[in-house]
Amino acid sequence: MKHAISSDGTFRRPRTIRFSDCDPAGIVFYPQYFVMFNALVEDWVDEGLGIGFRDLIVDRRIGMPTVRLEADFRAVSRMGDKVQLCLKVERLGTRSITLHASCVGMDGETRMQMQQVVVTTSLVDHRSVDVPPDMRSAIEANFVPSSVR
Amino acid sequence: MKHAISSDGTFRRPRTIRFSDCDPAGIVFYPQYFVMFNALVEDWVDEGLGIGFRDLIVDRRIGMPTVRLEADFRAVSRMGDKVQLCLKVERLGTRSITLHASCVGMDGETRMQMQQVVVTTSLVDHRSVDVPPDMRSAIEANFVPSSVR
Amino acid sequence: MKHAISSDGTFRRPRTIRFSDCDPAGIVFYPQYFVMFNALVEDWVDEGLGIGFRDLIVDRRIGMPTVRLEADFRAVSRMGDKVQLCLKVERLGTRSITLHASCVGMDGETRMQMQQVVVTTSLVDHRSVDVPPDMRSAIEANFVPSSVR
Amino acid sequence: MKHAISSDGTFRRPRTIRFSDCDPAGIVFYPQYFVMFNALVEDWVDEGLGIGFRDLIVDRRIGMPTVRLEADFRAVSRMGDKVQLCLKVERLGTRSITLHASCVGMDGETRMQMQQVVVTTSLVDHRSVDVPPDMRSAIEANFVPSSVR
Repeated sequence: MKHAISSDGTFRRPRTIRFSDCDPAGIVFYPQYFVMFNALVEDWVDEGLGIGFRDLIVDRRIGMPTVRLEADFRAVSRMGDKVQLCLKVERLGTRSITLHASCVGMDGETRMQMQQVVVTTSLVDHRSVDVPPDMRSAIEANFVPSSVR
Repeated sequence: MKHAISSDGTFRRPRTIRFSDCDPAGIVFYPQYFVMFNALVEDWVDEGLGIGFRDLIVDRRIGMPTVRLEADFRAVSRMGDKVQLCLKVERLGTRSITLHASCVGMDGETRMQMQQVVVTTSLVDHRSVDVPPDMRSAIEANFVPSSVR
Repeated sequence: MKHAISSDGTFRRPRTIRFSDCDPAGIVFYPQYFVMFNALVEDWVDEGLGIGFRDLIVDRRIGMPTVRLEADFRAVSRMGDKVQLCLKVERLGTRSITLHASCVGMDGETRMQMQQVVVTTSLVDHRSVDVPPDMRSAIEANFVPSSVR
Repeated sequence: MKHAISSDGTFRRPRTIRFSDCDPAGIVFYPQYFVMFNALVEDWVDEGLGIGFRDLIVDRRIGMPTVRLEADFRAVSRMGDKVQLCLKVERLGTRSITLHASCVGMDGETRMQMQQVVVTTSLVDHRSVDVPPDMRSAIEANFVPSSVR
């Protein structure tokens, strides 16, 4: 787990911008960033937190819907670009997790970033539930306050 | 044009939530809201403003990339739901347009809303350009300040 | 129901090709045709057959997964194109339905067509089940053999 | 290049089935297989053939649109499944390439397979052009007839 999340608390994965990510302007169609980050969250839950994402959703019936997001798009990404997708926990609430995600070019430039608040819910009735104890522990074990980022 | 945009300055289109909009939790996969709103913006440019969206992109080579958005997800939408997609201009800048978009259920409940800043750019070099005069005129002709919404 | 399916047994819906349907080549990204046809099948079940698609999936837990398809792409569709999506039953089996779908330009030219075999399954265990009697009746009532199409 | 394409002429890449690949039935939404295979073709052109996919599309303005496909869906894939995506050239024509692609589970079971004919086109006018010589050479160097697969 330690190797999956770096010492600054950030989980990173490389991603190649695909033909299918791009629009007729030749750049990433912006909703596609959220699809990329959704896969990043899956990998973070699996490999960063060591909690099976599929188990969480399918067996434990716990979802992580987004309730709020703020996103800034600063520079375009083009087909074939190699980027780094980064994820960090900003705040851990009783029933919510505030994430900071970004897409960074090989030159270190942030192309897009967002702050996203997800809540943990029961997939049976879509009502909020407490962040499961094992997820809470894993997040806390890797947490680094943003101020020292 | 008058019938396409209502007296409160809002452009509305009905939408059925599709099977393909939904995730394994049976509710709209959140990035899909942005895909829906992108189509709404196309219809608004075409039918609300009376400016051909295709002409704008393909012939005039003017794009409308998003530079910032803030979104709140308040209630889930499920497959088969009939919803209303709403769009209103909040602010018209020299090279940017601030939009307010929402997805409203048949009961009038807002399921999701966002504020989105788009800039007008040249699709040749992805640099910002002034909002074209015909688009500016059409927006101003239909503009209703948000305070009286 | 009679007005939804024409006398040649075909269910048709207009569709505008969206920015988000298109790829960096400026034409429809081919998997997107299948997304369009999936929505067409939903409308056909709802409005053509008079059987609620949502009821079918959510309440009756009956799915219609694709088991085979053959598709031909003959001409490109571009952003902003107005097309007609067409659907017709070619064969009705005990547990399967063979559909013919096409995307036709305003000039009558077929841009893309496919033959698709779907099976009716239980969404509980993903095993095939008989085509439900009400769906069978509705399909038979509107069926026109392809030879006289 | 030799390590990217195995001795039976097949290019393989692992893929995890994502939440966003799946539909409300909890299984892969079938058009999503084609999106996965499109990314596989990009990787094959890049890493299997050693020809930059981005260069091909953006700089050389050569596209590879699909003109025909036949697909069989044999078993479902679920969220979290680890699968192998496989690609092999079946036939190399003057202006077309016939590909065989499949999605195979960790147990070796083929969940889905397709035969796809792509043509090489000019992205300037969408007309067919000869398969570029460097692509032809790279394909021939790795080609293994299907009969001995």
